[in-house]
Amino acid sequence: MIGIVGVGHGKFGKMPEIPVQDLCIQPVLEALDDAHLQLEDIDVVVIGTSPEYHVQRSIGGIVAEHLGLNPKPVFLTEAACASGSAALYLACSLLNSDIAETACVIGVQKMSELSTAEILGLMGRVGDVQWESIFGTTFPGYYALLARRHFAEFGTTSEHLAMISVKNHQYGAENPKALFKGKKDVTIEKVLSSKMVANPLKVYDCCANADGAAALILQKEEKISSDVEQPIWLIGMGMASAPMSVLTRDSLTEIVSTRLAARQAYEMANIRPKDIDLAEVHDCFTIAELIAYEDLGFCEKGKGKDFVENEENTYYGTIPVNLDGGLKAKGHPVGATGISMVYSVVKQLRGEAPAFQVQDCKMALTHNIGGIGQYCYVNILGNERPSIK
Amino acid sequence: MIGIVGVGHGKFGKMPEIPVQDLCIQPVLEALDDAHLQLEDIDVVVIGTSPEYHVQRSIGGIVAEHLGLNPKPVFLTEAACASGSAALYLACSLLNSDIAETACVIGVQKMSELSTAEILGLMGRVGDVQWESIFGTTFPGYYALLARRHFAEFGTTSEHLAMISVKNHQYGAENPKALFKGKKDVTIEKVLSSKMVANPLKVYDCCANADGAAALILQKEEKISSDVEQPIWLIGMGMASAPMSVLTRDSLTEIVSTRLAARQAYEMANIRPKDIDLAEVHDCFTIAELIAYEDLGFCEKGKGKDFVENEENTYYGTIPVNLDGGLKAKGHPVGATGISMVYSVVKQLRGEAPAFQVQDCKMALTHNIGGIGQYCYVNILGNERPSIK
Repeated sequence: MIGIVGVGHGKFGKMPEIPVQDLCIQPVLEALDDAHLQLEDIDVVVIGTSPEYHVQRSIGGIVAEHLGLNPKPVFLTEAACASGSAALYLACSLLNSDIAETACVIGVQKMSELSTAEILGLMGRVGDVQWESIFGTTFPGYYALLARRHFAEFGTTSEHLAMISVKNHQYGAENPKALFKGKKDVTIEKVLSSKMVANPLKVYDCCANADGAAALILQKEEKISSDVEQPIWLIGMGMASAPMSVLTRDSLTEIVSTRLAARQAYEMANIRPKDIDLAEVHDCFTIAELIAYEDLGFCEKGKGKDFVENEENTYYGTIPVNLDGGLKAKGHPVGATGISMVYSVVKQLRGEAPAFQVQDCKMALTHNIGGIGQYCYVNILGNERPSIK
Repeated sequence: MIGIVGVGHGKFGKMPEIPVQDLCIQPVLEALDDAHLQLEDIDVVVIGTSPEYHVQRSIGGIVAEHLGLNPKPVFLTEAACASGSAALYLACSLLNSDIAETACVIGVQKMSELSTAEILGLMGRVGDVQWESIFGTTFPGYYALLARRHFAEFGTTSEHLAMISVKNHQYGAENPKALFKGKKDVTIEKVLSSKMVANPLKVYDCCANADGAAALILQKEEKISSDVEQPIWLIGMGMASAPMSVLTRDSLTEIVSTRLAARQAYEMANIRPKDIDLAEVHDCFTIAELIAYEDLGFCEKGKGKDFVENEENTYYGTIPVNLDGGLKAKGHPVGATGISMVYSVVKQLRGEAPAFQVQDCKMALTHNIGGIGQYCYVNILGNERPSIK
């Protein structure tokens, strides 16, 4: 079994003056310090990022160089907004195949090198360019289709989505790493009256682009030193792919890859959704978070709106979701997000959250989607090592 | 130990009308057929590519969809011109960690979506953008620096480089998959009088951009069916990183990552360079092939020119190099190259090469560089399973 022995997280925000490789340095050093390890202890590096955002190509090379990690092997993986989780998955594979004893996983993205218009163009091209983008689909446009259909089938409303936005901003305001730290003026009215992006999604239904990086240090159980007070165990992992094209899907109200990845992760961890004390889910848009409640089994299909109305998703609810602010309020540097989620739940599982610490938090889930669901990664983490592997 | 049980290779060339995802289909089906397996047998897909060349982003999703492989996990990895080898390395790790029993590895690149000027710009950005590209370094310019220094230190000449170009074109002319199949008019004089690109490198010293894909099917030994007549074993693998920036290097006449990756691979295979019957090396430029002879231990440092003069690198020499035409004559669709090299040596090790079949070929090497040596992968493949793991 693999344990997370160190975590680090840079501030998410707009940092046009910092080269993408240098965004990685502080999180990696923080994670090493947290793990009581040195740079020399790292056997392999896996980076999750979307290369198309950066002028500097093939950043694996420059990150390894600037961290002083040559000649150690360095890998880069891309899975759109799930690139960070893909890196974590591959790093676990490298550890389990005994190629390495200590792995460093970095999620990083610098989005401020491009204009908002360029980013919108780039994001649309994560959908099917041959058959869909050619007709002008944008990334918010795709999720707007899902929202419209969910509204029609299940009576979900813009107010439900607004409640998710308000919740995430409330928590993100207290997260020192968040882009919208300190922003406490987000109300239902403000969300509902914000500028329309892709009907019914408004500005406050959309996550924000950001620059940022986060890092983890992983080791196999037998390698973990007694200096590490509280390893956090990766007790369940799931990954599934689904058609990229939206036009071929049977349903627009679920992300099938989430359902399949979650099933794998729950089975591997041998738990049920109700055993989860905390979840970080992929709220690239508010509708994505609501659909995730259903796909992850936190509630039945079509009942996401009730889960919201009953405040089951809040700090005081049955499964608090996105207590770090989520992509919405923390910001979404795409390659960094999957690792940032893990950072947040590790802090919670250790009892070290900067705010909204869940009492008796033993089991947490991260959920990270690539694109419009063509990839999904679900991880289950715990602070107690299960007795059966 | 992991065996290659199926290989497939598309034609390399200019195929602007074929979407990048569809370039993958024929090689994967060919590899499956070769392995006597079906699509359903594939547990995981790993794609090596450089995403920046494609309008379609995150091609893992669309490749899995068009191949009908959903919901199987699909990963994408980028390591510049070594992306294919990175994919092979990670696929072996996924197999060795028992996440999968059968892996499909795809190397693919479509370069004809961009103009030559755009590609040149893109290639320069695989060097250090912050400190080098800003002064106008291009990709041929980097390798020209290495050539100039090699000329000054060791007396290597443009004629030696021209001999490599002529050799690779001679072999590539007989490779049915090569971009320059049938091109038999390349002479020393023609190379030397071709247009200067970056002094001393001329057009015929540079490999050619191409579109293309190649695929492998891998299995762990215990899974391999008796239907597979001749598995080819991955008996040695090495990967090393080195500084991306050229200005910080101790030497311009060697690629340190090649030396380190080769050492790992030789040690793992427990062989010496002289045991190699055939090598496919990374000749993005003729000087890169000459330096590889030295770094891989085929000859001493500075003696690459003698290795060429004595025709040790030819079909009749001690270690035939690039009998499939190499990047020079086969074409270099960057993500595909590492897998294409493996395809060629698998065919040789099985005795199925379309031309220039090495007699009694038992052990072969592939050498794949990312960028200007910030990554290097060396694989050693054999048609006999070593008795000691």
